[in-house]
Amino acid sequence: MSEVKVSVSPKEVSPQAAQESRVGSHPLRPLRIALFGFGTVGSSVARILVESKPQGLELTHVFNRGVERKRVEWTPKSVEWSEDADAVLGSDVDVVVELAGGLEPAGGWVRRALGAGKSVVTANKKLIAYHGAELERLAATKGGHLKYGAAVAGGIPVIPGLEQGLAGDRIERIEGILNGTCNFILSKMEDGAEYATVLAEAQARGYAEADPTEDVGGFDARAKLAILMRLALRVEVDPEEIVPRPITEVTAVDFSYARDLGCTIRQVARAERADGRLAATVGPMLVAVRSPLAWSRGTENMVIATGHYGGDVVFSGRGAGGHPTAVAVVSDLLALAHGSRRVEIPAAPAQVGGEFEVPHYIRFLVRDRPGIVAEITGALARERINIRAIVQKPGYPQDALPFVVTVEPCESSALKRALESIRTMDCLLVEPLDLQMLE
Amino acid sequence: MSEVKVSVSPKEVSPQAAQESRVGSHPLRPLRIALFGFGTVGSSVARILVESKPQGLELTHVFNRGVERKRVEWTPKSVEWSEDADAVLGSDVDVVVELAGGLEPAGGWVRRALGAGKSVVTANKKLIAYHGAELERLAATKGGHLKYGAAVAGGIPVIPGLEQGLAGDRIERIEGILNGTCNFILSKMEDGAEYATVLAEAQARGYAEADPTEDVGGFDARAKLAILMRLALRVEVDPEEIVPRPITEVTAVDFSYARDLGCTIRQVARAERADGRLAATVGPMLVAVRSPLAWSRGTENMVIATGHYGGDVVFSGRGAGGHPTAVAVVSDLLALAHGSRRVEIPAAPAQVGGEFEVPHYIRFLVRDRPGIVAEITGALARERINIRAIVQKPGYPQDALPFVVTVEPCESSALKRALESIRTMDCLLVEPLDLQMLE
Repeated sequence: MSEVKVSVSPKEVSPQAAQESRVGSHPLRPLRIALFGFGTVGSSVARILVESKPQGLELTHVFNRGVERKRVEWTPKSVEWSEDADAVLGSDVDVVVELAGGLEPAGGWVRRALGAGKSVVTANKKLIAYHGAELERLAATKGGHLKYGAAVAGGIPVIPGLEQGLAGDRIERIEGILNGTCNFILSKMEDGAEYATVLAEAQARGYAEADPTEDVGGFDARAKLAILMRLALRVEVDPEEIVPRPITEVTAVDFSYARDLGCTIRQVARAERADGRLAATVGPMLVAVRSPLAWSRGTENMVIATGHYGGDVVFSGRGAGGHPTAVAVVSDLLALAHGSRRVEIPAAPAQVGGEFEVPHYIRFLVRDRPGIVAEITGALARERINIRAIVQKPGYPQDALPFVVTVEPCESSALKRALESIRTMDCLLVEPLDLQMLE
Repeated sequence: MSEVKVSVSPKEVSPQAAQESRVGSHPLRPLRIALFGFGTVGSSVARILVESKPQGLELTHVFNRGVERKRVEWTPKSVEWSEDADAVLGSDVDVVVELAGGLEPAGGWVRRALGAGKSVVTANKKLIAYHGAELERLAATKGGHLKYGAAVAGGIPVIPGLEQGLAGDRIERIEGILNGTCNFILSKMEDGAEYATVLAEAQARGYAEADPTEDVGGFDARAKLAILMRLALRVEVDPEEIVPRPITEVTAVDFSYARDLGCTIRQVARAERADGRLAATVGPMLVAVRSPLAWSRGTENMVIATGHYGGDVVFSGRGAGGHPTAVAVVSDLLALAHGSRRVEIPAAPAQVGGEFEVPHYIRFLVRDRPGIVAEITGALARERINIRAIVQKPGYPQDALPFVVTVEPCESSALKRALESIRTMDCLLVEPLDLQMLE
């Protein structure tokens, strides 16, 4: 926190500054809002603006490709429906709400809007994770504001919580369940379903894409983690440096063993600063059933920020869906209308490592023969890794026998070396699955 | 949300406005801060300011009665220690941090500071619950700001979450575990301890006062609930209209029966707007062990806001203690230094009722004789209250027999009439204990 700097606003009267001074007088012209993207979230934002009529906000434009098939009857007659992005960006709107997602063309629209001194509200986690720092500098230069409360954990106010409520602390660790699709799949698997069945159900319900890699591979969660790291740990990182692990390696056997260990399995995104090093990772992990991370079921999201002074703060709720995400967007718009400036949290560029010192769960699937445990424990001993427990449940066949070794907290790199040696054993039917255990 | 109005700032250049314009230039004079009260929270605030050195904040004065016994060596030499409130209020400080608590003399200091155009940051739940609306109007008139993020749930950013992150929703219900002392006592009782023993432990640890009425009677939680109602339900209420129930009536027997019902017992503060009526209450209630309200153990706090659009959002963490509360204070100070205006949530004065339609748990303690159940169920039937279950566990003596009746959702007033009739039965050894059951 020693580096918290105070925002520097330019002295020129930018459109945003003019708008701010309007906010201070009464009656005022409301903020003119253009929605870019009229899908689930966009139509929910319009719905809230039309139903709740928040003073100070006026929906004036909707941009979408092939806008005619999107047009609805319940918005005010004055709203202009357009498929000409240039025309809308060149109009007198005050705020562009970017809900198209992805790096381009969304990034181009956002840059043009900010470059013209307009403000931007976006739910675009990828754009903010990869280009957030650059876009904030652009906004600051031109006098507009960039707000992205909807980019992480949808309707859960984690970003305002970190910016406004926890700015006075020094956050040392951030952990979260940031991908509702993975949480839906894993909490269904906890109840006994198989991965393929649940994935199909998630796809049928619209929770998962036809190609689910972005979600189950951990790429979606890592973009969100990069954004949280910026606000919580005050580091600007390249999301690509965070190595995600897919949840696809987790099987029913792992839930059974996890249960015996008093745990369940969740996709967790976590980052911490310890002993001067910064580490971040995303992947399936064992979490104690009594810990907050196990509370989230279905598509819920959760974030736990651990502060040096304030300890753990937990946020949980609906992380996705049209209405919850739209609440975050409309809240950001209200903050703009009220002239509420962000508490700027400066972040320094930093390299991310993957070194955590935690206990691990390692599940093996072997064709049984004498000497297997001796070889595995020998390989762990050579890396000075202490074994906590060896668990082998009855009822599995000798020729495809799953068993689990848990180890005391050890460096990730030491475990990786031990597993590289173990991986050469002839009895292994699949790669050993090692998961961090969070206590 | 249709009534959200945009803040109206006065046009005169008040000290606060001058300070805001300073915020916009660089380098700037930091905000000069006077701490009023140097107890646990005050010294934690000073500690964070000294250790973290947040730019833009400068501790300049500490006021405390008998200040000499409070003086510490680790603050900057420039800090002025004073027991003259008038002198500090009359100085050039920009922000008064009021941590003395109680209505007076704290209220007088806050009024004088705001009246002079200074800003005030306070953790004083009572002052804000009873006089928050009046003080905010005073601040708006004079150009200062009033911030009280620390007044409810200490280090948990519920107030910024409601103001900044959920302003776009229409909150329909707010529920919370707002008193750490009660939660400590009840979660220890859940583990088998007796009330008197745990209260003594809480007093020894400094969690409970010598006279614990303010906490166990529900008065502390009701002040906090009134503040949350203002921000979440947008109503200005008289806290005295919320009738609290003490936790002292809950016994070990109730935890045993609750467990059989898949529940535990927590002190819950809750308010909702349903069918056009506003209801609020504070007291011990049965909560499902799988529900978020059961997660909080020890002195933790939790708040659940239920939005029309966004559904349930849960905040949890450390609700009290020097450091967590100080985080909220320092975060408010940073928001002031950054010129972050509040999203003003206008509230309309409203009457509070106590009418909820929920299931109830009713525990009787009787000298057994024939006909008791018939009389009780008859009294409930006369009020058209449906019985869900009658539970009588074995192992209790006939002359002091506890048993439980649970009823389907019914109006609180109907149950009250039924209990008034039941209360005249000769076999009752104590008043029946009825608790709301939250599902």
